[in-house]
Formats: sequence, structure tokens, C-alpha cells
Amino acid sequence: MNSENFTLCEKVVAPSYVRQGSQARRGHEQLIRLLLEQGKCPEEGWSESTVELFLNELAVMDSNNFLGNCGVGEREGRVASGLVARRHYRLIHGIGRSGDIAAVQPKAAGSSLLNKLTNSVVLDILKISGVRSVASCFVVPMATGMSLTLCFLTLRHRRPKARYIIWPRIDQKSCFKSMITAGFEPVVVENVLDGDELRTDLEAIERKIEELGAENVLCVHSTTSCFAPRVPDRLEELATMCAKYDIPHIVNNAYGVQSSKCMHLIQQGARVGRIDAFVQSLDKNFMVPVGGAIIAGFDEAFVQEISKMYPGRASASPSLDVLITLLSLGASGYKKYLSERKEIYSFLAQELKNLASAHGERLLHTPRNPISLAMSLDGLQASSDQAVTQLGSMLFTRQVSGARVIPLGKEQVVNGRTFCGFMSHSNSYPCPYLNAASAIGITREDVTLCMKKLDKCLKMLKKDAVKSSSTVETGLSQCFCSLSN
Amino acid sequence: MNSENFTLCEKVVAPSYVRQGSQARRGHEQLIRLLLEQGKCPEEGWSESTVELFLNELAVMDSNNFLGNCGVGEREGRVASGLVARRHYRLIHGIGRSGDIAAVQPKAAGSSLLNKLTNSVVLDILKISGVRSVASCFVVPMATGMSLTLCFLTLRHRRPKARYIIWPRIDQKSCFKSMITAGFEPVVVENVLDGDELRTDLEAIERKIEELGAENVLCVHSTTSCFAPRVPDRLEELATMCAKYDIPHIVNNAYGVQSSKCMHLIQQGARVGRIDAFVQSLDKNFMVPVGGAIIAGFDEAFVQEISKMYPGRASASPSLDVLITLLSLGASGYKKYLSERKEIYSFLAQELKNLASAHGERLLHTPRNPISLAMSLDGLQASSDQAVTQLGSMLFTRQVSGARVIPLGKEQVVNGRTFCGFMSHSNSYPCPYLNAASAIGITREDVTLCMKKLDKCLKMLKKDAVKSSSTVETGLSQCFCSLSN
Amino acid sequence: MNSENFTLCEKVVAPSYVRQGSQARRGHEQLIRLLLEQGKCPEEGWSESTVELFLNELAVMDSNNFLGNCGVGEREGRVASGLVARRHYRLIHGIGRSGDIAAVQPKAAGSSLLNKLTNSVVLDILKISGVRSVASCFVVPMATGMSLTLCFLTLRHRRPKARYIIWPRIDQKSCFKSMITAGFEPVVVENVLDGDELRTDLEAIERKIEELGAENVLCVHSTTSCFAPRVPDRLEELATMCAKYDIPHIVNNAYGVQSSKCMHLIQQGARVGRIDAFVQSLDKNFMVPVGGAIIAGFDEAFVQEISKMYPGRASASPSLDVLITLLSLGASGYKKYLSERKEIYSFLAQELKNLASAHGERLLHTPRNPISLAMSLDGLQASSDQAVTQLGSMLFTRQVSGARVIPLGKEQVVNGRTFCGFMSHSNSYPCPYLNAASAIGITREDVTLCMKKLDKCLKMLKKDAVKSSSTVETGLSQCFCSLSN
Amino acid sequence: MNSENFTLCEKVVAPSYVRQGSQARRGHEQLIRLLLEQGKCPEEGWSESTVELFLNELAVMDSNNFLGNCGVGEREGRVASGLVARRHYRLIHGIGRSGDIAAVQPKAAGSSLLNKLTNSVVLDILKISGVRSVASCFVVPMATGMSLTLCFLTLRHRRPKARYIIWPRIDQKSCFKSMITAGFEPVVVENVLDGDELRTDLEAIERKIEELGAENVLCVHSTTSCFAPRVPDRLEELATMCAKYDIPHIVNNAYGVQSSKCMHLIQQGARVGRIDAFVQSLDKNFMVPVGGAIIAGFDEAFVQEISKMYPGRASASPSLDVLITLLSLGASGYKKYLSERKEIYSFLAQELKNLASAHGERLLHTPRNPISLAMSLDGLQASSDQAVTQLGSMLFTRQVSGARVIPLGKEQVVNGRTFCGFMSHSNSYPCPYLNAASAIGITREDVTLCMKKLDKCLKMLKKDAVKSSSTVETGLSQCFCSLSN
Repeated sequence: MNSENFTLCEKVVAPSYVRQGSQARRGHEQLIRLLLEQGKCPEEGWSESTVELFLNELAVMDSNNFLGNCGVGEREGRVASGLVARRHYRLIHGIGRSGDIAAVQPKAAGSSLLNKLTNSVVLDILKISGVRSVASCFVVPMATGMSLTLCFLTLRHRRPKARYIIWPRIDQKSCFKSMITAGFEPVVVENVLDGDELRTDLEAIERKIEELGAENVLCVHSTTSCFAPRVPDRLEELATMCAKYDIPHIVNNAYGVQSSKCMHLIQQGARVGRIDAFVQSLDKNFMVPVGGAIIAGFDEAFVQEISKMYPGRASASPSLDVLITLLSLGASGYKKYLSERKEIYSFLAQELKNLASAHGERLLHTPRNPISLAMSLDGLQASSDQAVTQLGSMLFTRQVSGARVIPLGKEQVVNGRTFCGFMSHSNSYPCPYLNAASAIGITREDVTLCMKKLDKCLKMLKKDAVKSSSTVETGLSQCFCSLSN
Repeated sequence: MNSENFTLCEKVVAPSYVRQGSQARRGHEQLIRLLLEQGKCPEEGWSESTVELFLNELAVMDSNNFLGNCGVGEREGRVASGLVARRHYRLIHGIGRSGDIAAVQPKAAGSSLLNKLTNSVVLDILKISGVRSVASCFVVPMATGMSLTLCFLTLRHRRPKARYIIWPRIDQKSCFKSMITAGFEPVVVENVLDGDELRTDLEAIERKIEELGAENVLCVHSTTSCFAPRVPDRLEELATMCAKYDIPHIVNNAYGVQSSKCMHLIQQGARVGRIDAFVQSLDKNFMVPVGGAIIAGFDEAFVQEISKMYPGRASASPSLDVLITLLSLGASGYKKYLSERKEIYSFLAQELKNLASAHGERLLHTPRNPISLAMSLDGLQASSDQAVTQLGSMLFTRQVSGARVIPLGKEQVVNGRTFCGFMSHSNSYPCPYLNAASAIGITREDVTLCMKKLDKCLKMLKKDAVKSSSTVETGLSQCFCSLSN
Repeated sequence: MNSENFTLCEKVVAPSYVRQGSQARRGHEQLIRLLLEQGKCPEEGWSESTVELFLNELAVMDSNNFLGNCGVGEREGRVASGLVARRHYRLIHGIGRSGDIAAVQPKAAGSSLLNKLTNSVVLDILKISGVRSVASCFVVPMATGMSLTLCFLTLRHRRPKARYIIWPRIDQKSCFKSMITAGFEPVVVENVLDGDELRTDLEAIERKIEELGAENVLCVHSTTSCFAPRVPDRLEELATMCAKYDIPHIVNNAYGVQSSKCMHLIQQGARVGRIDAFVQSLDKNFMVPVGGAIIAGFDEAFVQEISKMYPGRASASPSLDVLITLLSLGASGYKKYLSERKEIYSFLAQELKNLASAHGERLLHTPRNPISLAMSLDGLQASSDQAVTQLGSMLFTRQVSGARVIPLGKEQVVNGRTFCGFMSHSNSYPCPYLNAASAIGITREDVTLCMKKLDKCLKMLKKDAVKSSSTVETGLSQCFCSLSN
Repeated sequence: MNSENFTLCEKVVAPSYVRQGSQARRGHEQLIRLLLEQGKCPEEGWSESTVELFLNELAVMDSNNFLGNCGVGEREGRVASGLVARRHYRLIHGIGRSGDIAAVQPKAAGSSLLNKLTNSVVLDILKISGVRSVASCFVVPMATGMSLTLCFLTLRHRRPKARYIIWPRIDQKSCFKSMITAGFEPVVVENVLDGDELRTDLEAIERKIEELGAENVLCVHSTTSCFAPRVPDRLEELATMCAKYDIPHIVNNAYGVQSSKCMHLIQQGARVGRIDAFVQSLDKNFMVPVGGAIIAGFDEAFVQEISKMYPGRASASPSLDVLITLLSLGASGYKKYLSERKEIYSFLAQELKNLASAHGERLLHTPRNPISLAMSLDGLQASSDQAVTQLGSMLFTRQVSGARVIPLGKEQVVNGRTFCGFMSHSNSYPCPYLNAASAIGITREDVTLCMKKLDKCLKMLKKDAVKSSSTVETGLSQCFCSLSN
């Protein structure tokens, strides 16, 4: 309420009580003021009531909520369903304009503020998470793959001749497809085995660049976060190489914001060499629904170029989700999630190690992967051909989600290209294995429960193997080995 | 509740009352059954309680809501904020898989059902709205422009050599950018003046095709819904031409679903010639928040090809919005909106005509445009140079939204290309004018209020002109002529 | 947002857009201002967004929502469940203080405003609905019966000797119990038959007063709204009589606000004689959940005395519901409901008349009852003893709710007193009958559907009677004749 | 969804995924089954989604939500405002029938279940909290005071001659008014000073009983939870005395459920003597909004008699709130709150002790009061006459809520009776003091922040005293000494 209305309230209830209420209102306004002034994630999280107060204030500024508005255009933010209006806090106009997804809409000052503030708060969080020198970023309502596509499409206008994208292999379909969709030819560079780890083959990449000619290479497309035993790409060396050959460098940092190691790699890469943009998922890093990504970079002009490449308006929903989440958590709440994740990573590693040794397997040694772990399944494989895929299906039906089982030698065709040993990032990884990850939001209970169920499944499979009656639960198995893609 | 629980209830309250309650539950289940069986929009709209019951049932089927779930993957549908979880009905996993935006997710049976059913219901509505022979469609969480881009990117794989897209001019930035972003060269074909109407120049298009060589043309990119005095493209003739030259044909049907004329054009085009895909906005046709589109076509395989081109998962938010809306309205409710829109179009036309003649202007004669109308502003232009743009800013500050004012001879550079007479779809339309549209959801009050305010503004401007003191409210004017883009 | 924050917004998005947003905010504030200034129901209903904005503003003023609050009392408005907090808009402190349910709470300026404004808006609606000279009223979170009890308990302090309450018979248990609970002895005065109507026996009442001695009579407890063939009590004459004998007069106006006739009776009664308080249900008159009532009167001091009689704080829930409802409807919306109800009353009367004559029955002639109608069931009764009660159970299982079936000669003991012909307000009404009412919110569909089902049931029962195999559906019948009490 | 619909789902998405979803649904059903079977508070709290699923299931069973319902009664559960419908989960019919607030409504099986289950779950919690032998209870939508009134009104029918209620003094207006409102004469028995504690004067009570004659005493009305230095009444002795003289005994256990001591006193009292009913607040014990209470007793018939005394239906809102809260917390969650409260009580005691000694005051020694503490204000009183009340106002404006300041010798008239030393439960307590309580839901932060602010205020007041310029902030002081009543 404005001051005039507060004064009127004083005629209804005692002025001293109203004054205290109006003071309390200023408390909320003060938090909003800080946000507007600094454009940063508040250190302490806001209460639900402050968050909703703020969103309602934004909504009031959009023309579809003007009490005296009359609309004679083709897009007026009308909403047929009350359920829909409410779930979007009556913010209906989306974000951006036809020219630029980051642009301001005259009809929707509130939604425009939402958009600008979200990008600003997210930038702050990227800095806090380790990429101190990031210059600009924006939230886009597309998942990581399509966002990478948008980056490649933008680069096309800078490098009209280039046809190839050099890509250290990572077996996730959407990464591969992001290049295909953009109309480029991925040049897959196999990883090298280093102990148990699969690492970037720097020499092979440099060879490829020279072979194809730097001017024909659109960019290097590297990856940080990935499933063990693959580890994050060697960003420093790749960035240096890109600088040397004047080739753009796009980093797929899908769920890397949650790991200080991944963020550090990007920060270092940008410092010593060249990183043009790095892309991260909203849902995987900020515990919001699937469907948004952050495109970030070290050169504001280039980031803006990408944002201008998106034709038309876009859904505000992912921006709204991440803004609500970050305002509610505050920087301190987010950092707490990060440190808990790290702790549980160690816990998970220890538990997996114990379990592995109890079953005659071993935890693969992949210290460079800060999120994902892998446990060998050699023994299981030996016991029966189908046992490995069967384990996957058994875990699924026991409500263990996210545990991937990687059999040996699976072949898969993706957009016309055959990948040997698909899912293992390698033509011939030495052993089958199981993946488990400590991702943001995981709890100790998740780990404990998963270990218990995994233990049971492994025991059952062994018994089955002895009886050689492995018919139980095989029906489903074939379709589950690729579950997590 | 299941039957076991209903039986238990009978021990708490009288069995006859419980039985009636359980029967009532079956009433809701029956509606859901019909939806699942037929995949069609229900004829009568559902109550809010049935809609929410259904969404809750879907959510329960997603692994993030399993009571005993333990997650050790990198994407587990965790949500940090209760506000966010609730506004998405706890449907967190989005839609699609890395391989295909229409694919089913093992972790999220509920979200997968949501996705499939939405596409099915939307297909039904496209048929009801006039494109009887549409074969397949899917909702994509990107606005129209980016969806068109996806279509063009898909065609690239079919026609690797093609570089050009033939495009009858329509002055909306995102249409133009959709081609640029996809990496193609738009070949802009000017419209021809036919009375007051701007229509497709069929001869010029055919000339262009022959000039460039059909094999070098990726597709013809035509438009139905547009601002008067432009009218929908001559789809039948274009489709026939595309068939003749074996060139794909993509139709931008942005807000055309709401008009039986636009839908009829598409239906006819596909019948007599070739239309590969047509794209429409969710928000403009279904009164949901900005950010989604429907990509539809007559060949299921091609539509699927497009859906497989989207790399990675996607936001379920636009699907959820349109499903809630259509289930709530029912087919009958949607049809009622359509017929009301049509009626108000006639009302708006009459009102504008009266107003125009009162001010010495005239309603442009554009009977082929079923949605948008235009009123000349010759007299206003004559009174003062700035008066036309000033009118735009005056309407804006008076909360008339969507009324576009088109001055003469505006030049604009879009992605490096200069458009003369920008916003008027023509290098030199004979007169300045004002647009108003009767779009879905418009009310008689919108029209009446708009006419009143417009009348006042025109009177004020005339007085100003007399006084030649047109300084009032000019500050804003320059930025408002391009408002509606 | 306050002006400081709006200014900050102008640094993020264009000042002209922000200015428009801030102007829009003033639109909502203006509505709130009018409410605070005048304390009246707004003529036009508010949008959901204004209502919620307002409620959020109130909540912010309560101490449990102060950001810096620390509580060391025994009642701090803490809420354990987010679901609960949200459904009450975080207004947790209830209304009133230990001294007075209408008093202001220092800890809860917002809830106190809610309470005061609700009472004020409700008072306005009582005036609009016909009791122009009502002086004061308050909402109490108890249903009509308990609210009557509170009135009687208050009167006890004024008339410590009085033991009797004179009560023209109305067969609704809670009316009778309201007197028993308060500790008084109801003196039941039978109604007289006047044509089909049952009317107040004025002479018998006067006789009773003289017999008992006016000083021993706590009050006359009369009723307006009731089931036909009983009609509203003769308030003018009763009020005059009460004035004459100096006896308080409490009117049970349960669902009478919706009828201009009932309201007119009260207005007239107070004008010519004495009415101390009249009590009406919130749910039955304002379409809110069960559980609240309005206690109103013509002497502010007496109404305040009643409000001070309620010991302790009380739930704000009914106040919140009725305030939301009235702000959303506006006076015009509420009046529209009233006139629709009246129209449907005529429609229902006509339909019932037709149906009755088709089945050899008749619509009882009860023109003085403006809400409820009755159709004789003589023929049905003749066909079989159980047929009448069976009809009740059949209607129930066919989801016709609210249709009461009144058999002949039912006896019932209520709090130790035997009522003959219970439910018919008379020891011996001449015929069995069925009641149907046109109450606020009823639709034409309700009537049409009810007539159709009733017609079917009557036909089935006749057929059964012929076959004399009336065993179907009798199991339930005995418990349904008293359904509506 | 029912099994038929699940089968249909299998045609849309893979059967194995659907099967898992349907299994997940059974998980929720299982929790509901346990609740229905046992009628107990679940040990572990339910997730929000289970709670909402359950409430939606209940709502579906009420006739106002029947899809084919037609209503021709005067009370059909119609709701005009969607906001209102939603906030009540569409449970509109309230609880109870005209005959009995605990009765089942034929029109509303869902609301009836809600009512029965709430009473059952609440009974379980009373047992868990220490009154093991409680036989029956029900939730009533009235605060503690009015609920006590209802108990007294019920007793009147058992003891028609009795006029007095014997009441060991407790200075809370609503307790006193509860007797006045019921029409009885409170016989106030002063407490005796025992060290710092104010305790029940058993001898004086027995004297009073004999003086008045047991048959003229309606009941003894004792209190457990109260502000220090008063301590809970000596229930064992009182109960024994009531048994001896055959006098009913009603216990005001307002916020005593949270304290094992208070609950133990009741359990013991009932074991060795007579307790007819004990009444507790919902909001103060279960962190729900103000407005409900639980009436409980050891004789099921008597509790039922009280529930039958409530005339008419009642609001379901308090029942709904407490059910949501208890299902969400689970027994374990509630017990955790209890043990935290206890710990913080010790913490608060220690902190207050330290603060007191730092300011030359002392923590009063009141070990028998398990919730409330008191710190002397002798020094402050000595410094200035107004200082004590001024402290109250200072704390209020600094957002310390619930800290009561009790000056010496305040006189107050409540319903015509003058209380000396009002608020201190004594005509002449030796010193002024400040109260702070450790009530359920309190946090360590509350205590720490309160101590800091209190310390500051005391320092400021001392400085003021020195300057003898105590004009600041005195304006408000007079109205704040009675804040907490």
C-alpha cells in the first residue's frame, strides 16, 4: 500500500499498529531495493512472502494486468485459464522481443525487469561459483543442446566458410545432435585412456585442426561435466590451442556450475586462452524444472550477438523458476548446496568403494571427475552375458534412478553415425561398469538407500547366475542400458 | 482412492454416502478415460477440479515424486523451491529425451503422458479449426520464429545444397530472422498492391525460382496471419508452384488458427499442392503465456524428423499451459471463442469505419484479411509531420495496447538488410495508417474503449495542429512506431 | 514497490515503461483507497490480482510476517505447514482479542483491518439488500445456531430473571437447539394454516406472553427464511407486540439476505416495532464455505455488547472468505446474483407446477415464501406407504441434492421434546410433499436437470406400485427423510 | 487413476514405465490406507503431494463437486469465488449437522471423513503428548474461551441449580469471560505465594465449596498453562477434591499440549480424581491459525454430550489446518518440536538469568512453570515510574513480540468485576516483572535476538533515567501493558 492508504488505515486501526505494519512493509521493499540496485543474488535467501510480493509487483507492471487496458493487437497477454494465469503469477508476455531475447518489451515492463534481473542474478552466481571474469550471460528457455546449437548458428555468421566442429567424444546424444542440427559436421576425436580415466587427446585434436585447416573449423566444442571414467576436457590446453589457431571455443558445461573444479577449468581456460561461450543447464545446476540454459561468455558483444540470434519472444518460465529459486536460497543457501554436494561425493566414493570390494569389483580411479563415479562390473559380466543390462533394469524397478549401467561394446547409430562402445565415451573401454553421481541436491539418504538396493541386486544376480536361471526381470533389460541419455 | 481405501472409509462414515462419493470419483475417471482412449479435446470443458486431479495423477507417476525413490544421477528432478514445484504441479522432468522432443522418458511416465496427450489434443483442435487432413503435430517450447528456424534446419539435411529461402515480404522481424538464424539467405519478394490490399506476387516468385534454380531453394516461406493491408499469402497457388518445382513449403501461420480463413487456405494448399509444415504460436491462438509453438504437417515422417532435430529435453511448461487451457475450455469453449472473435471483427470494422469517416479518414478495404484492419491517417499526416508517430505514443500512454501506427517511409535495417517502408510490408504504401485487430479473446469492451480513446487522441492532435504546438507527448514518439514487433 | 524502487527500475528498463507500470499500480491502490475511505462494497468487482495484492498487503502488516520479528510469547502466529500458511494468505492471528471479537490486535494490524473492513463491507451489503436502517453488524466464525445462542446469552445479562423464549415453530433442529444450549426453555407456538400456508399464530403468542409474564420471557425468536409451506413470520406484528410488552426480539434470518421480501420484513419490523438483532448465515447467503454468520442490529450498543460476549479470539477464515467474495463480485455482481435467483424462482415454480399436474399432484400455493416451494405427494402416498420416503432416497442416489421429501406424521424427539409431524412445521399438515428451493447461485440447469430426474423417479415409483414390488432402493429410505436438517 | 485408465496409459507410453507410475501411486494409497485403518497420526510426516492428493480425494466425495449434481436446496456448497474454493480445497460443506458437530453429513462424505479423521488423529496426539487415558475429543472451530463456555453450558443441563464456578485466579480475560458468557458467577480464588511462585490455594477452594454448597457449584475451572510466576494449578489435589464433593472439573489447558508437565498433571488428575473435560487451543499447540480448540475428556458420553450441544454446522477450516499440519509433521515431527521447545526453554532461562544479573535484576524462581519465565524489574521501577510500561512499548516498536511487561498494582475492571494487580494473577505481587515464554516453534534466533534488543532497551532506559528525560516513546506506553491479553 502507498502512504496515502496507510494513512487511511490509521482511521480504522490504531495508528501505532499501522505504522509498525508500514515499517514492516519497508523491510520487504528494502530487500527489493538492494536487488534492483546491485543486480546480485542476495546473500541471505528471501522468505516466500517477499518473493511473492515482488513477483506480484512485477505482474502489476505488465499491460495485461492494467485495470483500464484495452487491447486491439494480436498478442495481448490474454489468458483463458485461471489456473494458467496463476501459475505464472500473471506474467504472460514472456521475455524478449522479435529482435533480441534480452530486449525490453514496452507492453511488459514487469516481465522485462524479470528478464534483466534474472540474467544479472545468474551472472552473479556464475562468478560466485568460480568463473570470476565472466562478462555477460543470459537465460534461454531451451535445454543445453539447443542452446549449443544457437551458439554454433551464431558463429556461422562470423565464419561463413567453416563446416567442421571438433569435438572430443562424449557419449550424450544431445551434444552430438546440437552440431548436426546446426548443420555442421562433427569431427569426433576419441579420448585417450590414462589409468582408468578417459582424457582429451590433445595431439589428435591439433592434428585434426591442421588437417582440416583452421579456417574450415567452426569451433572446438569441449565438455566439462561428464560421466566417469571420462573426465572434464583439458580446457586450458584446448583454450590455448584455439587462441593459437584463432578458432572459436564453445564449452558444454552442462552440469558443471555445481562443481568448483569445472568452473575453475573454464576460468583458467579463458585466462590463458580462448573460450567464446560456455553453456550450462538450469535444471541440472539449480534444481528447477527441465528446459532452460544459461549462455555465458567473456566478451559481452559476442554474448549479445547470440541473444540477438534468437528470433522472437520466448518463454519466461525458466527465468521465473531460476529467479524464484535463487532469491529463495540466497547466495549462502546455494553455496551450502554446493558444499554438501562435495561432501556427499566423498561419502558416495567411499561407500561405492566398500561395496565394490565386497563384491569383488573395484571403484575406478577417476580423481579428475568431480561429480561422477564408476564401479567396475567385471565379475558380473563374467557370471552371465545379460547380467549387466539386467542390473540396470533391476535398479530401475527398485526406484534407483540415475544409476547407469554400461555394458561392453554397445553399438549405436546417432544421426547416421555409428558409435562403438556407446555410452562409454570410448570405442573399447576395458570393462563394463556402473555410474553413480553426486549431483546438487543429493542427500545422504539417497546414497545409503542406493547402496542397499545395489547390494541386494548384485547378490540376487549372483544367486541367479549360480542357478543359471536368469529369466527373471530380463524382459525389460534391453531398453534400459541407455536410460540416462 | 482405490477401492480398498473406499471400503475402509465405509467404516468411518455411512457406506451409502461413501459409495456415492466413490461413484462421483468415477465421474472424473470417466472423463480421463475418454481423453486417454480418444486423444481428443473433450467436447465440454473440464472443471478445475478434474483438471487438477488429472495433473496430480500425472505427477505421481514421475520418479521425482516416488516416495521411495533414491537418485544418484545428474538429473533427478530435484526442486529447491516449493513455490517452483507447486507452480509446475511437481512435473519437473520436462518433455522429450536427448534423441527426440516427442520421445518418452523412462523416469517420467507422467510427463511423457502429458507430452503425448498435449500433442494429440492439439492435433484434434487443428482439425476442428479447419485443417482436417493434418497428419501430425507437436508442441515445442519455442516461439514461432525459432520453430521456423528448426524447420529450416531440418530441411537443410534434405537439401544440403540449397541456400535460399523465398519469402513474400512480411514486416515482422522474427520471421526474417528465423531464416538468418538458420543460416540461409532470404529472398524477399515484394507484394503487389491490389486495391488497398497487398498480395503475393506470384509471378515474381516463379521468376525467382527459375532464376535461382529450384535445387538451390531450400523452401518457400509463406505467411497467413498478418497486419492489414497485407493479406494472407495465396497459399493454393504457392503450394501448387512448390509441387511443380519440387520445393518444400513452410507456412508461418502465427496467429492463424483462430481464423477459419487462414486454416482453410492451409487445408486447400495441402490438398492441391505442397505444404510441408505449418507453424503457429501457442500464445496468440490459445491464450497462454508466450513461448510455445505448434509445428504441424501432412506427412507424419517429416514432422517426426523435425521433432528429432531438437537436441535434448525441453520445457514442459508451454505444453502444460495449452493442455490445461484446452481441457478447461473443451472443444465447444474454444469454438465459442472463435465465433466471438469473428463477430467482434465485424463490430470493430464497423466502429473503425464510423470513426474514420468522422475524422475524414477511411477504413482501408482489405476483405481478405480476416483479423487485422487498417484505417488511413492521411489527414493526420497532412496536419503535422510528427502527428502520426505521436498518435502511437498517445495511445500507449492511454493504455491502448496493440494499436500500431504506421508512418510513411520508415527505413529499418534488420540483420544487415535495409527495408524501406518498414512495418508496412511494402516499399511505398500509399498512405500512413493505424492497425487494429480482432484477435481471440477480445471483448466488445476492448473495442468500445479503444474507439473512445482513439477518438479523443485524434481530436487532441487536430487541436494541437491548429495551435501548431505539437510539443506535448512527443518525447516518447520516436520509440513507439515499432511497438508491436 | 515504493517510489524509490520504481526509480531504480528505470535504470533497468526504459523509464517510460516503468512509469506506465507504476501508474498501473496506482490503479489498484486507488481501488484499495476507496475501500478504506468508504468502507463499502465496491460497485464493480475487483480482479483476482487486486484482491490478492490487497490480501498480501494486509499480511505484511501482521507481526508473524515481520522480517525482523522475534517472538517470545505463547501465541506468535507461527505456522508449521506451508500449505496452511498459504491458504490463509499468511494471515494467522485470527480476529478479535480476548475482550471483544471486534477489537483490534496490536500484533496484527493487517488481520485487524481485515476484520473491520469485512464488517463494514457486510454492513453495506445488508443495507443494499434491503435493511436500510441497520446500524451495526459483525461476522462471527460460528454458524447461525451458535450465533443465536450468543445473542440469547447476551440477553441473559439484561434480563437475568427470564427463562422462556417464545418461538413460532420452525422444524430445523439447530434453531431449537440454539435456545436449549443457551439454557432457556423454548415455548413452541404452533403455526396456523392459512390456505396452504403455515403462518405465525399471533394470538397464541400474545396469549403465551401474558400467561408467562413478559418479564419472564427472554425474547421472541422469530424466523424469516424457511421451507414452504411455512412462510416467513409476521415480523411487523411480532415487532409491534415486542415493543408493546418490552420484550427483546431476535430474528433468525438464516438465508434471508438473498430475498428482498425477507429483508423488507426486517426493515419494516424495526421501523414499526422492535427487533434487537437478526442473524444470517454466511454460506447460505454469500456462497462461501459453511461456518460463519452475521449478527446485525439497529442499536450499535447492543450489537457491540454481543460482540464483547464472545470470549477470546476467533478464526478469521469466514471473514476472509466473505471479504474475498464480496470484493470479487462487487455490489453489482451480488445484485446480479439476487435478481437471477428471483427469476429462477419463477421458473422453478412454473416447472414444478407443470410436473405436478402431469403426475396428478399440485404445487402448493405459498406466495408468501419467496425461496422455497412445495409440491404435494398425495397420489404417491396413496400408491404405497413407503413410496414417499423412497422418493427421497432415489433422488439422493441420483445426485439431486436439497430436494426434501416430507412424509406425513413423522415424530421426532429433539433434546427431550417430541415434535409431531416433524419437518412439516406442523402437528398435522394435510398432505405429504416435496420441497425445492431457488437459492442464490442456482442455475437454470439445476432446475431442468432436477425436473427431469424427479419426473423419472415418479414414473418408476408408479410402475413399482403397480407391480407392488417396491423392494428396490428401500434399504436407504428411512435415513433420508431428515436429510436436509 | 483407476486400473482401467492405467491400462489405457500403457497404449500411450511404455507399459513398464506406466506400471512403475501406478506402483508409485500405490505408495501414496498405502499411506492413506494406514490412516483410514488406524486413525492415528502417521509416525513419519507425509509429503505435500500426498497431503494434497488426499485432500483432493476427499473433496471429490462431496456433493458440491459431483459432476452431475443438481441442487435445489438452500445450502448446496456453491462457491462464488474461485480463490475461496481453492483455498478450502473445494471442501465447502463444513463439519457436523444441526444435531451434532461430530455427525456425518450425507451431502458431504469427504468433509465428514475429514472431520472424523481429524478428531481421531488429534486424539492420538493427545495420547502421545501424555494424556494416555483420554477417551474422546473433538475439534471445534472456536477459540479456547468459547469452547470452555460450551462445556459450562453443557454442564448446566446436568446441574440445573448450580450458579457458581470456582476459579483459581488466572489473569486472562477470556478465561473469566467464558464463565460470564455462559451465565455463571465466577468465584475467584486468589493464589498463594510460595517462594516466587503463585500456586493454587487448595484450602480456600475447599472452604468456598463448603460455603456455597457443592450442589450450587457448576464446576471447578482450573488452569494448567499460564504466565510465570503463576504455575499450573494443583490438578491432582483439585481432581481429588472434585471427586470427593461430586463436582465437575473442567481444565483450561490452553497451550499445555506442548508441555509434558501440563499433560502429566491432567493424566494424573484423571487417574486419582475427577476431570470432566480439558480444553486446548489449536493455534497455540499446533502452529495453525487462530480459531480452533480441542475439547477432550475421559468419558466418551460426556464429550459427545458437549459436541451435541453445538447447534448447527461449523467451519471445517480449523480441522483442515490441524489435519494438514499433523499429517505433514507426522508424530515424529511433532515430537521433535516438543523436544526443541524444551531445550530452548532451558536456553531462554539461562540467557534471561544472565541478562537479569547484568542489569541488577533476577530471574524469578518458578520451576513449576514449564513454559513461561519472569525476570524482575525492581531496578527499572526504582529508576522511574513510567519506565516499566515504557519498556513494553519499546520492545513492541522493536518487533519483540510476546514479551509482556507487568507493572505493579494495575487495576482493571472485567465484566463489572475489579481485579487488583491485574495481569499478575495476584492482588499484590511483590515486584514488577517481564515475561518471556518458550512456546512451540520458537527458535534459538528468537531468543538471541530478543535478549539483544532487551539488553539495549534496558540500557537506554537507564540512560534516560539518569537524564530524567524519559519523554521519548512514552506516547504509546499506556496501551501496551495489556498487550498480550
